[in-house]
Amino acid sequence: MSQTYLLLISNSTLHGSGYLDHCAEEIQSFLKNHSTVLFIAYARPGGISHDEYTKVAKDRFEKMGKNLHGIHEFKDKQQAISDHEAVFIGGGNTFVLLTMLYKNNLIEPLKNAVKDGMKYIGTSAGSNVACQSIKTTNDMPIMYPPSFNALGLVPFNINPHYIDPDPSTKHMGETREKRIQEFFVFNDIPVIGLREGAIIHCKNDSYTIKGKYGARVFTKNKEPIELKTEDAIDL
Amino acid sequence: MSQTYLLLISNSTLHGSGYLDHCAEEIQSFLKNHSTVLFIAYARPGGISHDEYTKVAKDRFEKMGKNLHGIHEFKDKQQAISDHEAVFIGGGNTFVLLTMLYKNNLIEPLKNAVKDGMKYIGTSAGSNVACQSIKTTNDMPIMYPPSFNALGLVPFNINPHYIDPDPSTKHMGETREKRIQEFFVFNDIPVIGLREGAIIHCKNDSYTIKGKYGARVFTKNKEPIELKTEDAIDL
Repeated sequence: MSQTYLLLISNSTLHGSGYLDHCAEEIQSFLKNHSTVLFIAYARPGGISHDEYTKVAKDRFEKMGKNLHGIHEFKDKQQAISDHEAVFIGGGNTFVLLTMLYKNNLIEPLKNAVKDGMKYIGTSAGSNVACQSIKTTNDMPIMYPPSFNALGLVPFNINPHYIDPDPSTKHMGETREKRIQEFFVFNDIPVIGLREGAIIHCKNDSYTIKGKYGARVFTKNKEPIELKTEDAIDL
Repeated sequence: MSQTYLLLISNSTLHGSGYLDHCAEEIQSFLKNHSTVLFIAYARPGGISHDEYTKVAKDRFEKMGKNLHGIHEFKDKQQAISDHEAVFIGGGNTFVLLTMLYKNNLIEPLKNAVKDGMKYIGTSAGSNVACQSIKTTNDMPIMYPPSFNALGLVPFNINPHYIDPDPSTKHMGETREKRIQEFFVFNDIPVIGLREGAIIHCKNDSYTIKGKYGARVFTKNKEPIELKTEDAIDL
């Protein structure tokens, strides 16, 4: 039976460091037997083009000694998935990303590839779409996807860029924790509030927190649980 | 020909004051010829029930000398719309609110009623759904609506609880302005970034900023424009 491996990263750039710097070591260890990665640029952060975004990722992966190919460059995108052993889905807008995955009929091929052992790396929106649904994204819904259901590669949802309540704020918008509690009124999937700097390493049914600053695990009708680096997520 | 009147409020509670206190004067002036208001509690802030939410609004409107009836109490909700001359749609979660408006077949009846002169008050999510779409809400997408298209009563979108960039933050999530600029990559509707405390008074095709702290008007491919209280929105 094949193994499943995912590296789900809260954010691609940590304050004070460069693109992927804070997670480069984890990525290199995760990809130690792989030299080539398929990149999915569909989330288009700041609206940049697929080509521009792929160049940013390609340059950074080259520094790690890896080749990277943008999926949008392939005519047969499902074949491109079959031909690669590792995929990286970059951050940006989760609604745009998920819409494009549906439009290009990539949901089932990606699911099957990961189940067959393809290594999956996601940052921010790219981590959201690995989960059960995108219902715990922070993004603005600038595009209407055919569904909020995502790849379902892990049995939880992630809230990336998780931020603790700021008792000094005068802003009356909901805190992140309040938004997640509202999610539980209508949904019953655990939500991992993944702070910037934090990563979830997934190997089959084992989930371990890596990186910095840890995570907060929310479950319907239960008190949230605080996890730090190297802690396992107990679902 | 009948007139259309809307009062679109950024937020229901301003820091340091009570529910609707900061906009009570505007509401009273807006409703000076009306003693009864239909309330739509579907946005369920914090997941509270329709009854609980309606009680909060009812108590506050009674202080202003107005009666308030929750639409969920009526068996025939379309008839309830016909039977009232003013409606108030409260804030909470925009996705939950819009889903319920579609589920109860209230989109067309509300559109027609406002075109026929029904006065419309919205706070936060209730202001979002008066606009072209909910694509500029800040809320978490905890429920999947049949469409992001909203009532379309005004020719723009609102971003309520608008907040200016904080140069001191170390958080790497997108600023509100960056999110709105990403919206323009895929959409071409003006967006009014309505700060907490601010209100848009709409009379037919005239739109005036009221309340405190003003608004920022974003248009595709143009520099944002800053508006203060009593300024007209020039579309």
